[in-house]
Amino acid sequence: MRQSQLFTKILREIPKDEKSINAQLLIRAGFIHKEMAGVYTFLPLGNLVLKRIDNIIRDEMNKIGGQEILMPVLQPKSLWEKTGRWDEGVGKVMYKTRDDSGQEFGLGPTHEEILTNIISKYVKSYSDIPLYIYQIQTKFRKEPRARSGLLRGREFGMKDLYSFHVSEKDFQNYYELVKKSYLKIFSRCGLKTIVTEASGSGFTKEYTHEFQVLAEEGEDNIVYCQTNHFSQNKEISKLKKGSQCPICKITLKEGKSIEVGNIFPLGTKYSQDMNAYFVDKDGKKKLIIMGCYGIGTTRVMASIVEIHNDKKGIIWPKEVAPFEFHFIPIGLPEQKIMGLSEKVYEDLQKEKLSVLYDDRKDKTVGEKFVDADLVGIPYRLVISEKTLKKNEIEIKKRDENKMKLVKINNLMSILKNLD
Amino acid sequence: MRQSQLFTKILREIPKDEKSINAQLLIRAGFIHKEMAGVYTFLPLGNLVLKRIDNIIRDEMNKIGGQEILMPVLQPKSLWEKTGRWDEGVGKVMYKTRDDSGQEFGLGPTHEEILTNIISKYVKSYSDIPLYIYQIQTKFRKEPRARSGLLRGREFGMKDLYSFHVSEKDFQNYYELVKKSYLKIFSRCGLKTIVTEASGSGFTKEYTHEFQVLAEEGEDNIVYCQTNHFSQNKEISKLKKGSQCPICKITLKEGKSIEVGNIFPLGTKYSQDMNAYFVDKDGKKKLIIMGCYGIGTTRVMASIVEIHNDKKGIIWPKEVAPFEFHFIPIGLPEQKIMGLSEKVYEDLQKEKLSVLYDDRKDKTVGEKFVDADLVGIPYRLVISEKTLKKNEIEIKKRDENKMKLVKINNLMSILKNLD
Repeated sequence: MRQSQLFTKILREIPKDEKSINAQLLIRAGFIHKEMAGVYTFLPLGNLVLKRIDNIIRDEMNKIGGQEILMPVLQPKSLWEKTGRWDEGVGKVMYKTRDDSGQEFGLGPTHEEILTNIISKYVKSYSDIPLYIYQIQTKFRKEPRARSGLLRGREFGMKDLYSFHVSEKDFQNYYELVKKSYLKIFSRCGLKTIVTEASGSGFTKEYTHEFQVLAEEGEDNIVYCQTNHFSQNKEISKLKKGSQCPICKITLKEGKSIEVGNIFPLGTKYSQDMNAYFVDKDGKKKLIIMGCYGIGTTRVMASIVEIHNDKKGIIWPKEVAPFEFHFIPIGLPEQKIMGLSEKVYEDLQKEKLSVLYDDRKDKTVGEKFVDADLVGIPYRLVISEKTLKKNEIEIKKRDENKMKLVKINNLMSILKNLD
Repeated sequence: MRQSQLFTKILREIPKDEKSINAQLLIRAGFIHKEMAGVYTFLPLGNLVLKRIDNIIRDEMNKIGGQEILMPVLQPKSLWEKTGRWDEGVGKVMYKTRDDSGQEFGLGPTHEEILTNIISKYVKSYSDIPLYIYQIQTKFRKEPRARSGLLRGREFGMKDLYSFHVSEKDFQNYYELVKKSYLKIFSRCGLKTIVTEASGSGFTKEYTHEFQVLAEEGEDNIVYCQTNHFSQNKEISKLKKGSQCPICKITLKEGKSIEVGNIFPLGTKYSQDMNAYFVDKDGKKKLIIMGCYGIGTTRVMASIVEIHNDKKGIIWPKEVAPFEFHFIPIGLPEQKIMGLSEKVYEDLQKEKLSVLYDDRKDKTVGEKFVDADLVGIPYRLVISEKTLKKNEIEIKKRDENKMKLVKINNLMSILKNLD
């Protein structure tokens, strides 16, 4: 993509109404535009990152048998009355609307009601399950505390997976599988997450599990063992900073953290409310056992920025970066450099490498480098009169100071084999 | 994908509350589930088709310089008041909601307000435009007539593109480019569309243009020339069935049709309301000239089904089919056939061919064939004891009766070169 044509532009000032690093950097670098507190537009760069996060999640969900669907935002009141949640629990933060006839709808903050209702119609026998159904969709919650950029939105992206089982044991096995899958997803997104015990869902006796990222901007507090033996949300923990890890006896730490995902057993709460039964091998009618598993996709994007940044801007991990290479020719209006840089850009595209080409003619070298650091693309490629003398191009990683000069002739093979 | 694991199942009965062919077939074949009038869940098969339609559109939009973004559903009342549309025009069919503090939001039925506001902040100079910005997103409209399945929804998928220009001439050139792009998109989706003049947008003197598909289920009526010289929406046409085409003098026809897309000039209506100016080469401040271009993605899906079906079920065009091949081994529980069919399925997957494998053990051959015709995947592949004797596999197109027997050894190369 040519940066001269990219919508939108870099802003020099820090937006005054944003306190969080993620919002400040994402707005300044042109990834998002604030519409109102907790509601943002994803501009081309932001949309690219979000789609890459979505696709990592999709890839890993499909690997563990997930089938993708798309459920509606508008949900009829009647379904929510069956679970008693129209005015209670999550229903309290659900936006509501109505059509001209007075029929009332909720704007989906979660989808247990919709999906369990569908399941109740299609699942009849033990041989129809297990099923693992997910969607990636925009969700809505009334949010008086919408003040942390993409971390806490009134409108936000979410992947929600629901699983349906014949037995508690089958559910437990899948629950552990999702745990591993989640760790892989977050790791691919550049996030180190700590699996943390949290309060029960109210539907089973067990803990639920949160995936927490240590970060100053986080609203959660966790008590954790550095070697991953133990972590609990402070809300439920009897241990505290300085206590011994119950497993390895190391001294526990406390930290602020961001919850990027959570998984929890639902037991038979919703299958009971929505009449979702199956006939088991023994001929008996039984309630389906359920689990549910969420990842905030826009919150993941915010967390990546909270973790991966420096004074100059964002440092995108490779798998979620909007582009892999930022190609900056210095001295662009000059015929010789311009001709060659157009040629290099063409070659990069032919090789299907993902590149942002800074072909802007009204910016100084200094401005281009400052902008590149703010946008945070993993690799910067520079050609200038100086490098051209030796037929070379300069490669620099966003998070390293050292530069490497390589022959232009070898460029494509080198770029394809970068770590 | 293994059909035994596919969520959901084929229904034998026609849903009683659906009158349209698209809803009846899509529900019976397990593509969608009705939540309420005009609101559907896209099940795995339906989600696959919808994503393929989205990706065709994305591909063609990017080819004409489109940059994808994602705008919010929740839109502040204050923006809509600037254009006078909170209670007027499309505002009349806009769902509205509020948070606990009483702040009011509309659920986006269209996005001129949001995007022109962003544009007004980023576009300053003639060199900042043209810009072509689009999104693919769920939209909402109050719809008392929600009774045609996916054709007319209260919640529906839409691609909306907006263009921003320095001059009327620049706008006109792009408008013609979008017209060609739209014809290509619909053609790739298997739809023959007629570019039809319709009433002006109210913001400019010109006609707007609709992309109409002739179909009995359509709610529009068009007067058209069979050789594509002329077509007008009956609402505005002074000509009628039997009149002469003003260009080629052929006798005009009338037909019911579905509007799958529309494009229209917006002039300076929104740039004026939202203060979207640019400074031109001559140093003068001028209003940005805009166009807008919509495609109903879920309506495209419905139209495809309305057009491509027979008594047995759906006949998906290749580019939008949920899978390309439906592989059905006959006599599956028998060891010999099962072993071989598992091997063929593995090979198909290795070759990255898109295949639904009917490995269901509780269905008769007759049921499997009936289901396959209903689901409508373009090519059916069958192996049975009979074909195996000659080491062959049977290939049949969904919309043809003739079958072709090919050697299993040559299968992969033949499948990759089908028309």
